[in-house]
Amino acid sequence: MGIRVAVAGASGYAGGELLRLLTGHPEFDLVAATAHSQAGAHVTAVHPQLAGLDLTLSATEPAALADADLVFLALPHGQSAALAAQLPAGVRVVDLGADFRLRDPEPWVRYYGGTHAGTWTYGLPELPGQRELIAASDRVANTGCYAATITLALAPLIAAGIASPADVVVVAASGTSGAGRSAKVNLLASEVMGDLSPYKVGAHQHVPEIKQASGATSLSMTPVLAPMPRGILATVTAVPAGEGDPRAVLEQAYAGEPFVHVLPAGRWPHTAATAGSNSCHLQATVDVDSGRIVVVSALDNLGKGAAGQAVQCANLMSGLPETMGLSAYGVAP
Amino acid sequence: MGIRVAVAGASGYAGGELLRLLTGHPEFDLVAATAHSQAGAHVTAVHPQLAGLDLTLSATEPAALADADLVFLALPHGQSAALAAQLPAGVRVVDLGADFRLRDPEPWVRYYGGTHAGTWTYGLPELPGQRELIAASDRVANTGCYAATITLALAPLIAAGIASPADVVVVAASGTSGAGRSAKVNLLASEVMGDLSPYKVGAHQHVPEIKQASGATSLSMTPVLAPMPRGILATVTAVPAGEGDPRAVLEQAYAGEPFVHVLPAGRWPHTAATAGSNSCHLQATVDVDSGRIVVVSALDNLGKGAAGQAVQCANLMSGLPETMGLSAYGVAP
Amino acid sequence: MGIRVAVAGASGYAGGELLRLLTGHPEFDLVAATAHSQAGAHVTAVHPQLAGLDLTLSATEPAALADADLVFLALPHGQSAALAAQLPAGVRVVDLGADFRLRDPEPWVRYYGGTHAGTWTYGLPELPGQRELIAASDRVANTGCYAATITLALAPLIAAGIASPADVVVVAASGTSGAGRSAKVNLLASEVMGDLSPYKVGAHQHVPEIKQASGATSLSMTPVLAPMPRGILATVTAVPAGEGDPRAVLEQAYAGEPFVHVLPAGRWPHTAATAGSNSCHLQATVDVDSGRIVVVSALDNLGKGAAGQAVQCANLMSGLPETMGLSAYGVAP
Amino acid sequence: MGIRVAVAGASGYAGGELLRLLTGHPEFDLVAATAHSQAGAHVTAVHPQLAGLDLTLSATEPAALADADLVFLALPHGQSAALAAQLPAGVRVVDLGADFRLRDPEPWVRYYGGTHAGTWTYGLPELPGQRELIAASDRVANTGCYAATITLALAPLIAAGIASPADVVVVAASGTSGAGRSAKVNLLASEVMGDLSPYKVGAHQHVPEIKQASGATSLSMTPVLAPMPRGILATVTAVPAGEGDPRAVLEQAYAGEPFVHVLPAGRWPHTAATAGSNSCHLQATVDVDSGRIVVVSALDNLGKGAAGQAVQCANLMSGLPETMGLSAYGVAP
Repeated sequence: MGIRVAVAGASGYAGGELLRLLTGHPEFDLVAATAHSQAGAHVTAVHPQLAGLDLTLSATEPAALADADLVFLALPHGQSAALAAQLPAGVRVVDLGADFRLRDPEPWVRYYGGTHAGTWTYGLPELPGQRELIAASDRVANTGCYAATITLALAPLIAAGIASPADVVVVAASGTSGAGRSAKVNLLASEVMGDLSPYKVGAHQHVPEIKQASGATSLSMTPVLAPMPRGILATVTAVPAGEGDPRAVLEQAYAGEPFVHVLPAGRWPHTAATAGSNSCHLQATVDVDSGRIVVVSALDNLGKGAAGQAVQCANLMSGLPETMGLSAYGVAP
Repeated sequence: MGIRVAVAGASGYAGGELLRLLTGHPEFDLVAATAHSQAGAHVTAVHPQLAGLDLTLSATEPAALADADLVFLALPHGQSAALAAQLPAGVRVVDLGADFRLRDPEPWVRYYGGTHAGTWTYGLPELPGQRELIAASDRVANTGCYAATITLALAPLIAAGIASPADVVVVAASGTSGAGRSAKVNLLASEVMGDLSPYKVGAHQHVPEIKQASGATSLSMTPVLAPMPRGILATVTAVPAGEGDPRAVLEQAYAGEPFVHVLPAGRWPHTAATAGSNSCHLQATVDVDSGRIVVVSALDNLGKGAAGQAVQCANLMSGLPETMGLSAYGVAP
Repeated sequence: MGIRVAVAGASGYAGGELLRLLTGHPEFDLVAATAHSQAGAHVTAVHPQLAGLDLTLSATEPAALADADLVFLALPHGQSAALAAQLPAGVRVVDLGADFRLRDPEPWVRYYGGTHAGTWTYGLPELPGQRELIAASDRVANTGCYAATITLALAPLIAAGIASPADVVVVAASGTSGAGRSAKVNLLASEVMGDLSPYKVGAHQHVPEIKQASGATSLSMTPVLAPMPRGILATVTAVPAGEGDPRAVLEQAYAGEPFVHVLPAGRWPHTAATAGSNSCHLQATVDVDSGRIVVVSALDNLGKGAAGQAVQCANLMSGLPETMGLSAYGVAP
Repeated sequence: MGIRVAVAGASGYAGGELLRLLTGHPEFDLVAATAHSQAGAHVTAVHPQLAGLDLTLSATEPAALADADLVFLALPHGQSAALAAQLPAGVRVVDLGADFRLRDPEPWVRYYGGTHAGTWTYGLPELPGQRELIAASDRVANTGCYAATITLALAPLIAAGIASPADVVVVAASGTSGAGRSAKVNLLASEVMGDLSPYKVGAHQHVPEIKQASGATSLSMTPVLAPMPRGILATVTAVPAGEGDPRAVLEQAYAGEPFVHVLPAGRWPHTAATAGSNSCHLQATVDVDSGRIVVVSALDNLGKGAAGQAVQCANLMSGLPETMGLSAYGVAP
């Protein structure tokens, strides 16, 4: 008999990917999946890729999650806190939303409004010491997808003192599943295919999380919507702060990590190689003209950027092997 | 200690997908992977999605495959026969190429040229009685991707006598990975994105295989290259030959099948739902204007259309559970 | 001083393409463009591709169109009739909707509901005699995009008696702009990219128009949504009814036509070559296995399938050169 | 009788776009188009989008261009100089390659090798005073596509003293037609669709041109290949050097320009809106966290980034209206 898990908010893209991962997981038994407007629907009407899975979506209420030992919350920002407060203390919870990521209430209130609900253990196992904290927690705030991509590229360089935490410049392009599954004209295929489109330029709500997680003190981030369903490619540039080869620092930081791969010198990460996987690919160099450190980071926003990361955290919280039920290998082409 | 497997021709797209499936398979141990021009390269230089896998491609020669209990051949058409002839009799072989699929030498010679090498057990387990034949064989000719898509849609209707085997009309669109990994101008992204392009209209080399496997006696097939990396969508129309609901016939034919799903009435297959999986999705209706039976079939040309199907056959040949190491669920979006 | 033209329903994709064509037309002066929910918006807020054009969208009312000599209606099906009834008799009108295409009220009522408003001159100039009828009309019903694609492929073969009008089988794939600009989950880029998705299988509302225009008496049509913004590729198969080379018949039918091109033998139409143009590309052969005639037809659903066709008709109705303001050449890649 | 023009190197993507523009130009008569390996082919075999154009490609030799008053060179880098030296002095030439762009031989030799052939008038009419220089020249070096995109965003800000020329950071993503039409595995649709892929990170050959044209003294540029056929989106960030609103500076710099559009505040450029046009769209803001100026620039790499720009220069060189034969409006969706 395995560990009983449930997904609250299973009708979106991250929820669908969680269902795919959990149904293939050797130790997790999926006992419930909930939705809001899709409550009552068969799961395959919402996620046709799960044809063969017999499961009906329940309404998102505490009672629907009562049988679970561990609950994944894949809800719109601001809804996790209310639901989490109604779950028994013994239930482990991984929140894929932003509600519990920030330690500082000020940027939280500025970008999301309302009351700052609190701060949970940050769910990025590859940060120093974080794996142990996650394993000891029963409440974990999963990283955001941009924050995971950028922090994995940047944090070791700042920590090692070879990149200045000030004046970091990031351009990060995301596939459309990162924008969610709501019907909006600007997300229609007719608008997106053949198009690159920046958004929230100059003020993105994920910058505080990225700074908190990476150690950056000043960071310009420009997000771009790219014509592909999955994947984030972040180009992170920073001013050198000391001697040292950035690639070597990254390689040392992630030696032995199953899901973070510093590519051989000369090969650059690209998003398709990470699709469907829980891996992040990294490469770094120093720009010949400007002298800036340039790190490129790629991952699947629904994998290592959301559902895969959440399962990795859940494995740690459950005392299971960290890689269980996850693949390091992408589905390509 | 598991079953030792090798992949000959591992540098193409089907080869890469085989490596992904085999490295995640609980009972198969990948002991060798070979290539032609890429011999000597590290596997991740050829398949960046496998970052983390430490494997060097050998040259495609019998010696490189000598340690294997079971060999997958993912070679260009015409090259399997020569290599297979040099493998020990005790070695099980699954050929993903076309060399051993046809029983009739005439169309073989007409479309492929050269000598017809022979006929192996046809690797489509869902055909009646075929599962048992595969399990008893040590040489299996995997289906072609178009043949798998169309045969699964058509064979039960012809066998049940409700669709005429004559005058079948098929239009089948395939993602670009079906066209292989050779550098050709017409396969460049600039040419393919935003484009639908028919090819080999009026005379396609896979028609004899489709007729042999499905029972059709006259079949017009128009293949179309579609702007997506994976997936085949086949629209199969046939003249009714007797009473009967085509959807009910398909549902009965595939009851209990783990990888063939007749969708609930009113829902139609689409390729993205099958990407990365070993599933085929089917639906059928009768056209109100023409009275023709219309069946739509979707699968992943690299999954159920190639590598997944091959692993399914290999499981059967090895006495393992047929579904081992395969997923019925697609990676979507 | 040119001919004053207006576009009613300018906020959709066909409306936007009309604006692009009309602003570049040497003899048409765009005096008004109207919209429903976007009334009052600057045109560039709705169509960013028109940056530099200073125009505000009016509300769709007769008064907004009062200054026009010629009005294009690009409204949802069912709304053209009401508006057209309120326009002065002297105003020429081209309706891009379906309201006035069908001669037979029965299929109209069956597929669209409500009352059949009437029948206008059918706007496909390449049909025999139709060019002259259009030039003499002040009310023209533009072809539907599927009907244009399929009729241009099929009508000459049926008229010449070499293709049977019975048992025509069509599979036609369309880019997403053909599905309109309404925000729907199934049209989101995340759902569409990498996907081929059939819809309205077995009963499509455009079949009666296609039969009326092409002369087919029985026609199975399966439409497929393809992952590209523009373009339709129709594969049309028919049973031969007499001797004759289908390609030669098409070549003769379209000799001298500026916008219909029968490609050199052996070259097949593909959609990208027609993007942004008013051209339709055709090719035909006889299938070696089934003996069926196979015709492939490609055009831009917003060009020859909608806005370009409408401008071509408007040129004829205005006594201008038929090709004025239109390009036969596609924007590729 | 118009001005006789020829295109040397007409088989590539920029060459094809030149043919499309020139055949629609009111004053230019296309008298010859040449190619290398495609010499002797009918133009529609190479560019199917030009169906209806009757033209055979000649071999790229001076004799083939002898009838032209004005020659466009769309040749691989390094081949323009040799051919240009053989053209009569009276023939006007626009070179779309890199041979004559750089004033400084050192970076030329470093990135391209061989001998620096010389420096022609730089073909970016919107730079102050440049329009007049182009009009007075019979040899013009067209901008590179990245250089056009980035220079239009950056030059006015540096010239106005509100952006520091040092420490400019650029990430620029390009559609695949920018990578040319050679058959390469990494440009196959299977590899590119669903993928973002950086290349030449840390040392790109276009950086010297961008610095020369924009006035930047230190510039980090990371190019990214994006899954779309056309378009460049450049995110340009710079450190403020003085007071001033960057958007206002751009608006003033481009007031009255027909092809450079600073969008209304709050609306951001995206590539699809510029496809098929000769326009560049711009927007600027100041990042709230870092204080950096952020400018986003979008254009069609084959339009304002290559062929359109070349026609604009040719118009100026020929004493024609600068906008003749060019469209400011994009083909979207």
